Amino acid sequence: MALDVPSGYRALKENDVASYLAGLPAIAAKLGGKPADWRVREVGDGNLNLVFIVEGPDSGVVLKQALPYVRLVGESWPLSLRRSFFEYQALTAQARLVPQHIPKVFHFDEGLALIVMAYLEPHIILRKGLIRGIVYPKLAEHMATFMAGTLFGTSDLGQPAADKKRQVALFCANTDLCRITEDLVFTDPWRVAEANRWTSPQLDATAAAVRTDGPWKRAAQELKLQFLGNAEAMIHGDLHSGSIMVTETETFAIDPEFAFYGPIGFDIGALIGNLYLAFFSQSGHEAQPGERDGYRDWILETAEAVWRLFDQRFRTLWNTAHAGDAFAPALFDGGSGMLKAAQDAYMRRLFVDSLGFAGAKMTRRILGLAHVEDMESIGDADLRAACEKRALKLARALMVERSGFSDIGSASDAARAILRETMT
Amino acid sequence: MALDVPSGYRALKENDVASYLAGLPAIAAKLGGKPADWRVREVGDGNLNLVFIVEGPDSGVVLKQALPYVRLVGESWPLSLRRSFFEYQALTAQARLVPQHIPKVFHFDEGLALIVMAYLEPHIILRKGLIRGIVYPKLAEHMATFMAGTLFGTSDLGQPAADKKRQVALFCANTDLCRITEDLVFTDPWRVAEANRWTSPQLDATAAAVRTDGPWKRAAQELKLQFLGNAEAMIHGDLHSGSIMVTETETFAIDPEFAFYGPIGFDIGALIGNLYLAFFSQSGHEAQPGERDGYRDWILETAEAVWRLFDQRFRTLWNTAHAGDAFAPALFDGGSGMLKAAQDAYMRRLFVDSLGFAGAKMTRRILGLAHVEDMESIGDADLRAACEKRALKLARALMVERSGFSDIGSASDAARAILRETMT
Repeated sequence: MALDVPSGYRALKENDVASYLAGLPAIAAKLGGKPADWRVREVGDGNLNLVFIVEGPDSGVVLKQALPYVRLVGESWPLSLRRSFFEYQALTAQARLVPQHIPKVFHFDEGLALIVMAYLEPHIILRKGLIRGIVYPKLAEHMATFMAGTLFGTSDLGQPAADKKRQVALFCANTDLCRITEDLVFTDPWRVAEANRWTSPQLDATAAAVRTDGPWKRAAQELKLQFLGNAEAMIHGDLHSGSIMVTETETFAIDPEFAFYGPIGFDIGALIGNLYLAFFSQSGHEAQPGERDGYRDWILETAEAVWRLFDQRFRTLWNTAHAGDAFAPALFDGGSGMLKAAQDAYMRRLFVDSLGFAGAKMTRRILGLAHVEDMESIGDADLRAACEKRALKLARALMVERSGFSDIGSASDAARAILRETMT
Repeated sequence: MALDVPSGYRALKENDVASYLAGLPAIAAKLGGKPADWRVREVGDGNLNLVFIVEGPDSGVVLKQALPYVRLVGESWPLSLRRSFFEYQALTAQARLVPQHIPKVFHFDEGLALIVMAYLEPHIILRKGLIRGIVYPKLAEHMATFMAGTLFGTSDLGQPAADKKRQVALFCANTDLCRITEDLVFTDPWRVAEANRWTSPQLDATAAAVRTDGPWKRAAQELKLQFLGNAEAMIHGDLHSGSIMVTETETFAIDPEFAFYGPIGFDIGALIGNLYLAFFSQSGHEAQPGERDGYRDWILETAEAVWRLFDQRFRTLWNTAHAGDAFAPALFDGGSGMLKAAQDAYMRRLFVDSLGFAGAKMTRRILGLAHVEDMESIGDADLRAACEKRALKLARALMVERSGFSDIGSASDAARAILRETMT
């Protein structure tokens, strides 16, 4: 397929960036000094885009530019440059709701499909921190605030139907990116697909068994149906630990180019599922067995706190910031307890959805195209495969038995039990 | 609020219609003779639009024109003329899927917000036939075909995600009409609303009790949430017995101006709920008690057959005409029975949704703004109120206990039981 590139688009090179930014006076002033003083590095280690960090004497900015193909794969997999527009739209919506947890946007260039935004420093990608065993005491609280804020605020509880429908329509055009998730997260791991890969030969039999596991495939497709059709809220769409930047005191969600109106549980599940992947990967990162036991506990406690604090904050917003057309407050005046019962049922459904999506996100990272550094950085393939098998076992339970988990604590218990029984 | 009317729009009068159609050679030829020979009658008895029947020597056509306000209420309630565009879009999509059950469109004039389509003759509005006690042996089969065809074909089972998202985006702009349903069907009957009316004083206490009925209000709002956010398929959006034209051998669904991508169960529920309203209204239309017993049975059998045949046809399409991205067939090769289990769960959910929506549609016709002729034509207010109370009793059960009905037969049983216990 030929690349569909609008005229005027060109992929920037490191030595183009300074002159481009020099043409934007507000940003040039922010960087300080002269263009010749600016240090430009291309650091994109993601799967899709160019990312330049530009540091001037006064401050730094990030310039993120979409490429017309999937960087991880190459020009053989074209991908719409419009994703940059959707990322900008998502950042704009998020900025109204949780400005403290997203990078500030300074400039959007639709023709070049690029966004210039705040350089977060000394923040690192959460995934790298999890691999190193760093504790982030504010992570759960911040991510719960980010998710409750964005997901409530763009839901039918948080905005009027007419506004929401306009936004749904806008993001419906982000089909290319949705398609990636539909295929890679919900379908490919359960079928023979060229792009699939796994730790081989250790996981060959496991991968084959997954492809004939009826209940697991059914769960994957039920979740896919929700992803395709349930326009609950504007979701980030790719909220794994590689899309979160942290210090011990600050937390930012980045890269919402997969954003669209989809199921709320998909974001929560992405985060929780990636925490579980980090949990199971710890055995590959400790010098002696047991060295990371405390850290393992912290990861599970964080996953639990993510859900519990999300649940709290979402309910608080529902009770204090209702602005949508669902669950008209006028009907629930008088405190019959009925709104509480409706909220319990609503949150329970979100919880069940979240576990299912967590399992799907875990599975695709082990059997599908795109893997995670938590596992990939484990050099010993036997050890890596052991970690991956444990993660797959939990993933299957989270998907197939998602309605059976009574609370987030029981998901942690399942993770601990899988680790215990396979270590002895 | 001032009416927002595009320049060039004018509401046609009976004596404008012939000269307008004379300007459309294909339609003029269809009518035959000369414009002076054409007989024009305005017959709109609906709530929203002008409807002209034009009969020429050779054939007839219908010209339906949107007014910039709700006809039932007047200019004080403006309503977008764009609904004509959405009706045209819906008719176009339906024509690809079930041409045999919708009127053929001959002309769409976006500026005048009018559609010229086939004149269905000698068909009558189903609701009028139900009031007269006429049996329609093909009704259930035809409506099951219409619903399965349109709802499957526009779902994520029947069309690829990219196509569906384009259509979802298009219909997202039909907010005005969605808003009417959100308010009148899901909210107003459960609160004090100026537009509400009911048979008074007979139903005063009932209406007051409904407004403090926590479980019923919760059910109404849960269903509203689905209506707001679950973009399952292109639904007709107003599929009551006034939107269906019948003879004993033919069935046409008309007036899809409320169409948008919403929950599949809303259409099924609209039809089944209106059949139940017809069932309970029969006591008001029989000269002697019991005279319509056989007809009552036929109505319930028809409601049952609507669901059962819909279920059959939808599954058949799933198994033979799958063209969407949900439940990728490649994953279910080899006949593990897992697809059947997934379909059972899917159809069960649609069934539960349908009962809930049926109950909401029944409630709004008794306690809300727009009533139905089945009940309104019962002159004796005490008798009418008795029929309406029975209908409300079933409506509540269908909504609050929707998950508890094992099958459509048990819904019929509930209807019969309510009739029996309140007649003695």
